[in-house]
Amino acid sequence: MLSEFDLIKQYFNRQHPGRAALGRAALGRAALGIGDDCALLAPSPGMQMAISSDMLVEDRHFFAGADARMLGHKCLAVNLSDLAAMGARPVAFTLALALPAADPDWLSGFSAGLFALADQHGCELIGGDTTKGPLNICITIFGELAPGHALRRDAAIAGDDLWISGTLGDARLALAGYRKQYRLDDAALLAAGTRMHTPAPRVALGLALAGKRLAHAAIDISDGLVGDLGHILAASGVGATLDVDALPAGPVLAAQPQALRRQFCAAGGDDYELCFTAPSSRRDAIVAAGHASGTAVTRVGTIDAAPGLRLVDAAGQALDLKLSGFDHFASA
Amino acid sequence: MLSEFDLIKQYFNRQHPGRAALGRAALGRAALGIGDDCALLAPSPGMQMAISSDMLVEDRHFFAGADARMLGHKCLAVNLSDLAAMGARPVAFTLALALPAADPDWLSGFSAGLFALADQHGCELIGGDTTKGPLNICITIFGELAPGHALRRDAAIAGDDLWISGTLGDARLALAGYRKQYRLDDAALLAAGTRMHTPAPRVALGLALAGKRLAHAAIDISDGLVGDLGHILAASGVGATLDVDALPAGPVLAAQPQALRRQFCAAGGDDYELCFTAPSSRRDAIVAAGHASGTAVTRVGTIDAAPGLRLVDAAGQALDLKLSGFDHFASA
Repeated sequence: MLSEFDLIKQYFNRQHPGRAALGRAALGRAALGIGDDCALLAPSPGMQMAISSDMLVEDRHFFAGADARMLGHKCLAVNLSDLAAMGARPVAFTLALALPAADPDWLSGFSAGLFALADQHGCELIGGDTTKGPLNICITIFGELAPGHALRRDAAIAGDDLWISGTLGDARLALAGYRKQYRLDDAALLAAGTRMHTPAPRVALGLALAGKRLAHAAIDISDGLVGDLGHILAASGVGATLDVDALPAGPVLAAQPQALRRQFCAAGGDDYELCFTAPSSRRDAIVAAGHASGTAVTRVGTIDAAPGLRLVDAAGQALDLKLSGFDHFASA
Repeated sequence: MLSEFDLIKQYFNRQHPGRAALGRAALGRAALGIGDDCALLAPSPGMQMAISSDMLVEDRHFFAGADARMLGHKCLAVNLSDLAAMGARPVAFTLALALPAADPDWLSGFSAGLFALADQHGCELIGGDTTKGPLNICITIFGELAPGHALRRDAAIAGDDLWISGTLGDARLALAGYRKQYRLDDAALLAAGTRMHTPAPRVALGLALAGKRLAHAAIDISDGLVGDLGHILAASGVGATLDVDALPAGPVLAAQPQALRRQFCAAGGDDYELCFTAPSSRRDAIVAAGHASGTAVTRVGTIDAAPGLRLVDAAGQALDLKLSGFDHFASA
């Protein structure tokens, strides 16, 4: 069996010759990376660091036996999504990993998926920890942004448009399919499952929204739109009207009945899209930013001065949906 | 049962009124703390950030049912120890926590132990994650230091003195006592156990060594002196001669037989002392820095140009001890 130190060197230290096959060398933005008590990092002059941590647990955030390469992608993707929601440029991350055993096949797949996405975003692994234990993956990610440019949850203003990137609900649909709560044919389950396993963090869109100061508030949708939008409303002291039928359903969900579309678009979870608010004067610029970043953007409602979230249908009539966000401490 | 969001607010968000009883308010060095997608942090102008992650797993790093308050202390202490070994000043940390259940008693004790130590070091909790899962505590810590001042593992030079802070081996002795591998009376086990459960990170000493440029290389001793010193020797391309009988045994271990003293001082684990190298011209200044930081410092050997680690006794005779560092993937 590999020792802890061999394991780190072989799969995660990209200065190590054995790593060369898995991609280009570390990007070298850290002054000191893996292999000391701490990594050393400095933001570019005048920039702030944006920092976020996400912990993924087997049977909670992913199925036991999940494909290691997709898992490597996903655990970094959910952290990149937090940077995207802040409008920060990815710089580096640490990885802490508890593993039941040092399985070379698993480590090879996991590190390949992780580094493929890291390289796409120029985000360098600078340190971390490995230990034996029930499978647990904890990434802390670092981005940078100019002071005052962050897309904060408390910045929504009454009269803002409400926007969603990409599409919603396919990941939640895949979960229902895997759990046999809803019947999908094999092709549909594969397509929806890909969305669940390999989300695409909206980093380029977040950078455009923050860098050009197009948006006010933003959050990434991880626990379901209604719950996550609720955090913006509470932090900003505003309400919203949400046109549930305007929500952009994922391609697999779009072919399902209306009731399911509404449910899984509004309160699906695992979407990793951005929900953001912006003044109506920015509509054209936001559509252009979406085009430039290869990400669809859809206007789905408005921010109101009156507190509370009002769900309406395409005709503007109130909808009484039973919805709830995802809570990791509620029963599964 | 508390929801995830209530739990975070009640025990970890110190801006929340419910937290007031547990200590003074957050120190406010972060531009944005808990409650958004990311925290925002900037080092002081011209300073680098030192970053380290440690993950603690039940039954691996601590016993199931461990006292929550001591656990809160320890999981931050081991991270502060990494900053100390770099010579960095603590600034902030994130906490990711997987819990089998949201138990208010446990959370209250854990957060009290965590924040008591955090306040001692002016280190602010700025974000993190909570989820349901097998108990797992992952902290990522942020310090700052001036460029070029870091105490790196690769900076030892032949001719350097080899130093140890504080005392060694009592934590390992406590483990042997708890496991019934070695008989200790109750008072001795309590004293040694305190050392195991509530280590004191040597932050002040690390700052003095780096700030005054007294030391060359440093590492914190978490997996046993011989193993951790080995990382310095490998990174620096040097060897060392270590006087095993000069190693400062903890007060409980000091009363035990010589063979046990040698074993647990040289390869105990869980010590969280600093092992550092420095030119002989700095001896008086290092002793003074130890006094000023309230930390004993003991000279225990020399760095050699010849590779390898030579263990000797008080008379300078070679010692053939069977020792090995702690490896989290070796069988327990």
